[in-house]
Amino acid sequence: MDESFGLDRAAALALDAQDELAGFREAFVVAEPGLIYLLANSLGRLPKAAAARMAAVVEQEWGVRLIRGWNEGWMALPQRVGDKVGQLVGARPGEVLLADSTSVNLYKLALAALRARPGRGKILTDDLNFPSDLYILQGVAEAAGQGQRLQVVPSPDGIHGPVAGLLAAMDEDTALVALSLTLFKSGYTYDMAAVTAAAHAAGALVLWDLSHAVGALPIDLHAAGADLAVGCTYKYLCGGPGAPAFLYVRQELQEQLHNPVPGWMGQRKPFDLALQYADAPGLARFLSGTPAILSLAAVEPGVDLLLAAGMARVRAKSARQTAYLLALWRAFLQPLGFTLKSPLAAEQRGSHVTFGHPEGLRISQALKEEMRVIPDFRRPDNLRYAVAPLYNSYSELYEAVQRLAQVVTGRVYARYADDGLAVT
Amino acid sequence: MDESFGLDRAAALALDAQDELAGFREAFVVAEPGLIYLLANSLGRLPKAAAARMAAVVEQEWGVRLIRGWNEGWMALPQRVGDKVGQLVGARPGEVLLADSTSVNLYKLALAALRARPGRGKILTDDLNFPSDLYILQGVAEAAGQGQRLQVVPSPDGIHGPVAGLLAAMDEDTALVALSLTLFKSGYTYDMAAVTAAAHAAGALVLWDLSHAVGALPIDLHAAGADLAVGCTYKYLCGGPGAPAFLYVRQELQEQLHNPVPGWMGQRKPFDLALQYADAPGLARFLSGTPAILSLAAVEPGVDLLLAAGMARVRAKSARQTAYLLALWRAFLQPLGFTLKSPLAAEQRGSHVTFGHPEGLRISQALKEEMRVIPDFRRPDNLRYAVAPLYNSYSELYEAVQRLAQVVTGRVYARYADDGLAVT
Repeated sequence: MDESFGLDRAAALALDAQDELAGFREAFVVAEPGLIYLLANSLGRLPKAAAARMAAVVEQEWGVRLIRGWNEGWMALPQRVGDKVGQLVGARPGEVLLADSTSVNLYKLALAALRARPGRGKILTDDLNFPSDLYILQGVAEAAGQGQRLQVVPSPDGIHGPVAGLLAAMDEDTALVALSLTLFKSGYTYDMAAVTAAAHAAGALVLWDLSHAVGALPIDLHAAGADLAVGCTYKYLCGGPGAPAFLYVRQELQEQLHNPVPGWMGQRKPFDLALQYADAPGLARFLSGTPAILSLAAVEPGVDLLLAAGMARVRAKSARQTAYLLALWRAFLQPLGFTLKSPLAAEQRGSHVTFGHPEGLRISQALKEEMRVIPDFRRPDNLRYAVAPLYNSYSELYEAVQRLAQVVTGRVYARYADDGLAVT
Repeated sequence: MDESFGLDRAAALALDAQDELAGFREAFVVAEPGLIYLLANSLGRLPKAAAARMAAVVEQEWGVRLIRGWNEGWMALPQRVGDKVGQLVGARPGEVLLADSTSVNLYKLALAALRARPGRGKILTDDLNFPSDLYILQGVAEAAGQGQRLQVVPSPDGIHGPVAGLLAAMDEDTALVALSLTLFKSGYTYDMAAVTAAAHAAGALVLWDLSHAVGALPIDLHAAGADLAVGCTYKYLCGGPGAPAFLYVRQELQEQLHNPVPGWMGQRKPFDLALQYADAPGLARFLSGTPAILSLAAVEPGVDLLLAAGMARVRAKSARQTAYLLALWRAFLQPLGFTLKSPLAAEQRGSHVTFGHPEGLRISQALKEEMRVIPDFRRPDNLRYAVAPLYNSYSELYEAVQRLAQVVTGRVYARYADDGLAVT
């Protein structure tokens, strides 16, 4: 069902000329113009506005206003920026806030969910979920302490999410279904509404990790009836290295759930400093310690750019760019032995395409060291090209595929050892 | 046992002239020279080097180096800066790292400690501990799930830590003694070695929250035999609003304890992305999610300044400055109805002095709004003057006490309502 693409450089330039989002590239720092950066699924580029914002936060808000900064904006930051992220994921105001890391947020929400489903012993997930999520869910099962266990349903092919297996495993013992909406290796993207409905039919709560989806495709948590979600802000949202994550709790659930890591920022009146904890009303109870303001402030500019572009337009370009990557793969990479490790169906694709090759790690190193392309690599053999529609052009994708082909035809990768550490 | 001080402006200037640390003030941004900022126990001033460092991290490391930043320094940052903080608290290399918030770190270490003392049901603390610590310990008791409970020993007078009460409560059922080394309201500081030894005699582990002590006084965790510690970096360390906290685990315990919030950064080989979690060797297992690099990078310059000054000199000046504040209190404030809510004994004092006054909140507001002094206020009636020896002068303390007296003699505070929210 892919549209057909011209497969030369001129065709790529023509696609760029038609691209209505092309102007957004100007909003980002592009310091090495020849470098093709395809890592939006790991660390997004720096928005120019984020650099300016950070200078203001450090020099003006911290340097001059000092403690007064808390009343002049910092206290409200987790909720204010959270509501903006909420617009990207179909949440209502007051349903999203920024706090901690994705792992810590997952711990808090998943443990709260288990405690809200006493008597049910099972957390369901899949074996293509990001490993940190599996580790955390294991920790959650232990902390829940009623013999709960994690059931990891295997993917049928290492690419697609095991929908049938998950549905079959949902039963009256299932407390929580916890999945990544878009899988980090293959980019496979679940049908959120369908899986959520099935879990609800079994009486389970559903938690979505949106890390590889938010900012890459439109998400409608409200329409899907999703209960809980967490997600990362340093990938497609371009919030900066290790930027604070977000969490979502559906409004109707907020008063029923309790933060298992109850810190003062989640207390009803933090500055009364009462000895007894009392939940803050609504979502604020899921704050724990003092938020990392500098990192948090850097998140807003990238989110503003996505809101300005509109997720429908972002998704349209992303879908067209990944389709273009598939066409380039067929023409130039498949003949060289690259397999496709992403779904073919457009509605199941995220914003990255994964190519399999037995020499993937060495190829990835050669690309970075000699060919001025930065992809990423996931063991055992996944080479990922991720597209950020706000700053990646069709020409970049064309060039990146040509250079990838050159690395193999010229055996450039032969100079590299198979012991690299891909840090993404 | 206080030394005697001259109590006029000239004497304050003479003290400043003798101050061998006076030059460090130049290392900080002081944007409003007339403003007296006495909030080192809440948010320290901005080191000039931190502003420069942040610009480099944002514009160069993120903007230009992008994902390569992880291998070029970010991955090592929690440990590298942690080791520097370790030098301030008497830890050996590899015993301190930066991660998460103080609340989250307390949760992780306290829960790990309870699990390492099965069959013991009690966590001991005091009622002057920072409330967030009490909330978190409550959450830890619940997650441990073996009927553990928090016993909160009351202070005899609201100022001093209840040492006798704590010692009496330590028994064979005590799993963990968790205390703040310096208490946030009164500044009372425990004898770390003595309390730790008593807890060990009862077979309990000991966890110290160093938030109000680190950077204010010398700490020797190793000499005291302390097991665990957490602490804040945005107070005396001047790491910026909400800067990541630190955690300490004594080397000999590291392999016995397990992170209850096991994220990928604590995994043995995070980038192998194995489905099964395996503890990283040593302290790294207590990392959870991806560290907030921008906030984390801002911590180092303030720590460097304290290392350059040396904690012995910092403490000597701090002790002299708090003694000076006591002398000023006796001369100017006690006659106006201010009580002293900090210990008189020098060895029990931290780096802040607390004055009690029934109109404390309104007085504090008047100071801020009209007198260009920023103190902080803690309910019900605690007005705190905190001294940062690296940038606060004796003249500032003299002026701040004169202005405080003026607010009362001139009834300036009468213009303010008793409903302010002191955000610190």
